Amino acid sequence: MFDEARSTRTGTVARGSVMPKFVFDFAEGNKDLKDLLGGKGANLAEMTNLGLPVPPGFTITTDACRHYLKNGENPSGLTEEIEQHLVSMEEAAGRKLGQPDDPLLVSVRSGAKFSMPGMMETVLNVGLNDESVQGLVIQSGDPRFAWDSYRRLVQMFGKTVLGIEGEKFERHLEEAKHAKGSTSDLVLDAGDLQKLVEMFKQVVQDETGKPFPQTPREQLIMAVEAVFHSWNTDRARLYRRQEKIADDLGTAVNVMQMVFGNLGEGSGTGVAFTRDPATGRSGVYGDYLPKAQGEDVVSGIRNTLSLADLDDLDPTSYAELVRIMHVLESHYKDLCDIEFTIERGKLWMLQTRVGKRTAAAAFRIAVQLVDEKVIDLRTAMTRVTGAQLAMLMFPQFDPKAPRKCIAKGMAASPGAAVGKAVFDSATAEEWVRKGEEVILVRRETNPDDLGGMVVSQGILTSRGGKTSHAAVVARGMGRTCVVGAEALQVDAKLRVASTAGGARFSEGDVVSIDGGTGEVFLGEVPVSPSAVANALRGQEQEVTDEDEKELLSSVKRIMEQADKERRMDVRANADTPEDAERARMFGAQGIGLCRTEHMFLGPRRQIVERVILADSPEQRQSALEELLPLQREDFVGILEAMDGLTVVIRLLDPPLHEFLPDFTSLSIKVALAQAGGNPNLEAEYLLRQVSRMHEQNPMLGTRGVRLGLVVPDLFQLQVRAVAEAAARLKKAGKDPRPEVMVPLVATVEELVIVRLKSEETLRKVAEETGIDVKVAIGTMIELPRAAVTAGRIAEEAEFFSFGTNDLTQTTWGFSRDDVEAAFFPTYTDAGIFSVSPFESIDVNGVGRLVSIAAKEGKEVRPGLEVGVCGEHGGDPDSIHFFESIDLDYVSCSPFRVPVARLESGRATVLGSGSISSDTR
Amino acid sequence: MFDEARSTRTGTVARGSVMPKFVFDFAEGNKDLKDLLGGKGANLAEMTNLGLPVPPGFTITTDACRHYLKNGENPSGLTEEIEQHLVSMEEAAGRKLGQPDDPLLVSVRSGAKFSMPGMMETVLNVGLNDESVQGLVIQSGDPRFAWDSYRRLVQMFGKTVLGIEGEKFERHLEEAKHAKGSTSDLVLDAGDLQKLVEMFKQVVQDETGKPFPQTPREQLIMAVEAVFHSWNTDRARLYRRQEKIADDLGTAVNVMQMVFGNLGEGSGTGVAFTRDPATGRSGVYGDYLPKAQGEDVVSGIRNTLSLADLDDLDPTSYAELVRIMHVLESHYKDLCDIEFTIERGKLWMLQTRVGKRTAAAAFRIAVQLVDEKVIDLRTAMTRVTGAQLAMLMFPQFDPKAPRKCIAKGMAASPGAAVGKAVFDSATAEEWVRKGEEVILVRRETNPDDLGGMVVSQGILTSRGGKTSHAAVVARGMGRTCVVGAEALQVDAKLRVASTAGGARFSEGDVVSIDGGTGEVFLGEVPVSPSAVANALRGQEQEVTDEDEKELLSSVKRIMEQADKERRMDVRANADTPEDAERARMFGAQGIGLCRTEHMFLGPRRQIVERVILADSPEQRQSALEELLPLQREDFVGILEAMDGLTVVIRLLDPPLHEFLPDFTSLSIKVALAQAGGNPNLEAEYLLRQVSRMHEQNPMLGTRGVRLGLVVPDLFQLQVRAVAEAAARLKKAGKDPRPEVMVPLVATVEELVIVRLKSEETLRKVAEETGIDVKVAIGTMIELPRAAVTAGRIAEEAEFFSFGTNDLTQTTWGFSRDDVEAAFFPTYTDAGIFSVSPFESIDVNGVGRLVSIAAKEGKEVRPGLEVGVCGEHGGDPDSIHFFESIDLDYVSCSPFRVPVARLESGRATVLGSGSISSDTR
Repeated sequence: MFDEARSTRTGTVARGSVMPKFVFDFAEGNKDLKDLLGGKGANLAEMTNLGLPVPPGFTITTDACRHYLKNGENPSGLTEEIEQHLVSMEEAAGRKLGQPDDPLLVSVRSGAKFSMPGMMETVLNVGLNDESVQGLVIQSGDPRFAWDSYRRLVQMFGKTVLGIEGEKFERHLEEAKHAKGSTSDLVLDAGDLQKLVEMFKQVVQDETGKPFPQTPREQLIMAVEAVFHSWNTDRARLYRRQEKIADDLGTAVNVMQMVFGNLGEGSGTGVAFTRDPATGRSGVYGDYLPKAQGEDVVSGIRNTLSLADLDDLDPTSYAELVRIMHVLESHYKDLCDIEFTIERGKLWMLQTRVGKRTAAAAFRIAVQLVDEKVIDLRTAMTRVTGAQLAMLMFPQFDPKAPRKCIAKGMAASPGAAVGKAVFDSATAEEWVRKGEEVILVRRETNPDDLGGMVVSQGILTSRGGKTSHAAVVARGMGRTCVVGAEALQVDAKLRVASTAGGARFSEGDVVSIDGGTGEVFLGEVPVSPSAVANALRGQEQEVTDEDEKELLSSVKRIMEQADKERRMDVRANADTPEDAERARMFGAQGIGLCRTEHMFLGPRRQIVERVILADSPEQRQSALEELLPLQREDFVGILEAMDGLTVVIRLLDPPLHEFLPDFTSLSIKVALAQAGGNPNLEAEYLLRQVSRMHEQNPMLGTRGVRLGLVVPDLFQLQVRAVAEAAARLKKAGKDPRPEVMVPLVATVEELVIVRLKSEETLRKVAEETGIDVKVAIGTMIELPRAAVTAGRIAEEAEFFSFGTNDLTQTTWGFSRDDVEAAFFPTYTDAGIFSVSPFESIDVNGVGRLVSIAAKEGKEVRPGLEVGVCGEHGGDPDSIHFFESIDLDYVSCSPFRVPVARLESGRATVLGSGSISSDTR
Repeated sequence: MFDEARSTRTGTVARGSVMPKFVFDFAEGNKDLKDLLGGKGANLAEMTNLGLPVPPGFTITTDACRHYLKNGENPSGLTEEIEQHLVSMEEAAGRKLGQPDDPLLVSVRSGAKFSMPGMMETVLNVGLNDESVQGLVIQSGDPRFAWDSYRRLVQMFGKTVLGIEGEKFERHLEEAKHAKGSTSDLVLDAGDLQKLVEMFKQVVQDETGKPFPQTPREQLIMAVEAVFHSWNTDRARLYRRQEKIADDLGTAVNVMQMVFGNLGEGSGTGVAFTRDPATGRSGVYGDYLPKAQGEDVVSGIRNTLSLADLDDLDPTSYAELVRIMHVLESHYKDLCDIEFTIERGKLWMLQTRVGKRTAAAAFRIAVQLVDEKVIDLRTAMTRVTGAQLAMLMFPQFDPKAPRKCIAKGMAASPGAAVGKAVFDSATAEEWVRKGEEVILVRRETNPDDLGGMVVSQGILTSRGGKTSHAAVVARGMGRTCVVGAEALQVDAKLRVASTAGGARFSEGDVVSIDGGTGEVFLGEVPVSPSAVANALRGQEQEVTDEDEKELLSSVKRIMEQADKERRMDVRANADTPEDAERARMFGAQGIGLCRTEHMFLGPRRQIVERVILADSPEQRQSALEELLPLQREDFVGILEAMDGLTVVIRLLDPPLHEFLPDFTSLSIKVALAQAGGNPNLEAEYLLRQVSRMHEQNPMLGTRGVRLGLVVPDLFQLQVRAVAEAAARLKKAGKDPRPEVMVPLVATVEELVIVRLKSEETLRKVAEETGIDVKVAIGTMIELPRAAVTAGRIAEEAEFFSFGTNDLTQTTWGFSRDDVEAAFFPTYTDAGIFSVSPFESIDVNGVGRLVSIAAKEGKEVRPGLEVGVCGEHGGDPDSIHFFESIDLDYVSCSPFRVPVARLESGRATVLGSGSISSDTR
């Protein structure tokens, strides 16, 4: 979910200096108070105020929880406030909590701002004790029900509130059932259950040294604190990390009068959806379980009925439910899901919320509601997310096909890919040339694997995390990728991968990988292509399925709306004519980042090596002259593909060492040759050269503009190639719009020098060709110093583009390559961040620098074009942030362009309320 | 010079929207307009307004120069303004520029804000041409003088304004003198000179294709532009870089009516000082040269007379000069130097300025002026600099002793060191244990050399710049150091160093190195210790020399005043009890940075390696237990030495790899063993471990708090050792004041975790020992993210200390180790910066981050103590900046403490006007 800020900003309603209010009666709240009352509490309040039949109750706020978690005790006054609300409830009910002859019972349930199903605790039947159980026997006329309720309380309370292992209770329960020769609860009668209560109470006494608390009000306060406490269990923390929910939100606690679906005939419990969550179709969808409580539905011990069956069992309640469903859907203007209980023929609403749905249903429902005139298309657009769109764009494995999962890694880049396993880049390229489809399997990848990655169907690594080289590059190329499948032992030499479980595959064996789940399958699993992706790409195909047709039409209408609404342009990062074309089909309005370093790898790397290691200017010049025509052709291709649109070409950026032989391998080679008595003079010469240029920290070494200043001809070769390419296209009647971007600028003086030289080169080419091509010269802002001196840099830069990847590395002082495996796991475990700052922009740190730079740059040069070309350009959360600070465009990988278009539109409509900040 | 801002801030006087004024008559300016009028122009104006005999003239501003340099042409209106001022001058003189019968002649001289002697151009005798030279013959009655003047004009103009090689003129002059059988100008008579003028004019015609310009006003404008232009000659740029003068200042141009010291009897020229610039003693010091012009004094072609001789030659002028000297010294309240000319008995003042002096004289003169009641001690303190103090603190080679210089490197850390050459750290340590004094000679140093560096008298490297490891560490330890002595071939294996010139020395040969000049000498050169350093250290010694006595007393009085004035505290960076004691003697008010990583090198490195590579918690725990008593002793020593003063102990900071075997060496070892058919299993195991932890960019890897979170016991071992050490000392009646500093924090969450754990450890130690030691827990601010989120971090940090070294690395995105040699030379050549940002704080980039963090930290936690512990803490320019942003203290190496005390005092008094910013 990217559409809501998963962090507390306001935290609490303003209260000035008056006594804080920690408890809200259901009638006091409303659905917009989710920060304070949690989702469940806010919606219970909303339903109460709509006049729907909600059992009486009140909500204890998240503020109270946060206070408890911080200080280890309840805020002062909380107990008194709870008491006041409880007394009102008792007065309205005409009986007291745990009143011996007619006990009022309550449930105590967690309810955080964001749903965390099953993660936190619930205690039912609070108020029962040795006396009031007798009252319940009389009032219900059902001793079995009464003793079962008491049994459930002692069990839940013991486990949840007193922290006793569940197994200690379960054992007795199992024995009792076993004694009756069954595995079902139903065989136990009132007497059995009464005995179990005694045993359970003894467990409590044995485990805690104290008797089970008999005072109803004490039970209540203890249960409330246990719910607070459950916010911080390991499984809750883990869940929040996975779901990007902030750790400091806390949960609210809902105290509600118990109603019983298990009170014999005419009672039951169920869940309902106001429309089909899979297709969006209007109607009555849901399940019903007679003579049961909610937990019985969840535990799945009995088969549920279809909701339609309720019409037969209890037509009055059914009609009432259908009426309420209409009220809710018109009120929430969206699909709602509902939990309800019928107690002896009386319908009670226990919960409602805007219901979860599949990605496809999200699009369909949003547009259906438009067609039903419930919402407008602008609102519909905010009801779907970029993440949902992305999910629809990938091909998927046929869910019905058989498969054998042999390992599971991280879902690094979605999609379903099938191919023959290859274990190195060269083989991948060779086999693909022969017409094979391959999966590149590596322990981990590095820039040398790029060629193989480009041609593969998918990439599978046994090491690395979601921001490892493999993951990042694969996402950039929209290639399916599973990383960190640690069960796999990859042996690139023997060309085989195996698991401890005995599964293995060798070069040429077919494997299938699911980039959406991280699963690795032996053999071929059939794949269905994505009609949505094809449609977005403008490749309409014959669709017969009505649902599919509706989906495509919904996506199209929402994307049109997003394009209409959005303020920011969306460009793509593309380095080849093929990628540029693809980006354009996906709706890119230009190339925001054309990296040129990839053009220098592969066979040309040898030439670049000669440029860098040249002993004389002549040697260097001759190498450069070899590069010029090649580089010119590169640019002709890309500019042609993007005719009429801006193409921002970044001058060579990567660290020196990427163009040089590996220092360690070379050292070994030299040492081995020497040891063999047959010194390798050539390797020794090379080692001396490489060692001279060896860098301790290549990321912080001679890169980008630094390389361009140390080897000035290299940059000017590139500028010349750009200008010559543009001139040729212009001569041919085209409209090339190249711009040149200088990387890694720290001070404006660096830019000045490159700019002056480049302008000279452009003038020369104009003279030589007779064609004057306008080429704006701008810079990346990717170093903290560039950000804080952006005002000065703007004096000389015609545009800014934030390289948020590098900016994140230097602002945090860590290199992606090194930290991912080394300490990111520790950091996410410790809650230091829940999402890598490389995935989603770090608003308070990197974001603040971006914001300062954009503002000060535009102050100095009004109209300065400012965009983002880092990975973050395609990340929904980040896009919302960039919208809020008025950037002009985002640029992302071609495949993410539709996602960015949608999220930019949503960001414009949703405003700054939609920005979340994960890290302090 | 650190005491003046060598960059233009105001640039120009405010003028609103009226026409800019580019020309100031001497009567219009004053000495405070140096930015606009240059030093010479401002002082000429001051003298004019004092009623002293200055020839009439005017100054063209630096604004005009900057406009010219930027646009390649004079600003509009400049020519008209010059014309107006020239006309006024002509009217006052009653004759016109170059008037044929009685020519007014002018000099055109450069004059920048900061003196750049001999760097820029001068043209004399402007106004002479074929006609007016005849007028000058008649008016002067001296044809030789007239023709010589014209000859000089054509020669200077040709060379300076027209850019003709000087040699083309010199050749003719030499031939003419040769023809007369002499090498002196004096043999040439009027006829010879007239012929030379014709030849010179022909040279002009031949070289430029145009005749020598005969129009006086054209000569003037061309000369003005030539002076503007001369600002940017290579030698001027180079000089500015060396002197840290900003490139964008530009020069002013002074146009002054010519007066002639070479107009026969009763004429002459000289220089004078109002007191002795070497000792400061009052009196008349200077030189006089009869019948000469200023350039003759400079060129040294004739021997000058002592100024006292003028009293005999021309008592009237002498008395007048002495009177003027008194006027100037009382007016400037400082030693002035003066250039003057006497033309036929009339004294003219051509220039004055506050005179340069030696470091020792600076202290003496400042205090003499106090005793003479000319200035107060507060002002006296601003008249000396930290750089001068530092110079006085180092021992120096006896200037009279013979010596043989074999190479010259960079003066990296001052002092004079003598010792036996050793070529590795281990030998250094071994020899020193045997009582030898050694000079460590390396190609370059790395952290492994630390042990040897500590014990050596001095360090000599053949590679690296002023901020290489050797230079930085040596400066930190106050150890003499010469780096980059490239003429030396250092062969560590053969233990010999040699030069192409045939000089060589082997292990054990005595060498002497001068860290103030960069010179390397064969054999022993006798050294005199610094009495100033001893006195500052509180070690008074018997001094008989009166000058020396006066110096020591002056230094003492000025240091007392600095301590009285300064707002900032001065602490020291010290890692050992010895350094701590030394720092305390030098006046440190605490330890601002006690690095603990040095404590883990040497023999303990093995134990740390076991901690990091531990396979099990047990292995790790056992290694940690070995470290605890060692580490506790470290802290006992330091806390004892600093009893009663704060000691900020930084938890372990360096990159992982510094504790691990080198990856490449280990790879070679394994490969060789394998190739030899005898695999080294232990090395292979180690290689796997090291390779698992190998980092591409260790600087950006698992360091500092990251290591502390990944290996939490390591930090807690240190915290425990601090607490136990403090408890033991407290029990012994001492007053230990340790603080714990967490390095490399990027987000407050990291600090929270370490802080909570540390507080737990402190509580435990308090329980175990029964002694409660207060230990504040704070953090380094050394990453951009920490700086921009400092407000949040201040919620949890009890103090901040800026690690400006690392902050500079990440803000600029370059690592010191890698960039120094690779592109800093290119950058300084290109004028991107003139001083390394590692030496002097980069005000606009790093400084801005420091300033944001200090401000926002103090806003959140009023009273937050904020200091600096990077190298910059001992750098005068940086200290002035830190004062301006209200930091609480600076911390620097022990030896720099007196410098920091002095500069902190000066910064308080001088205010923010004293901050310079080198880099845009």
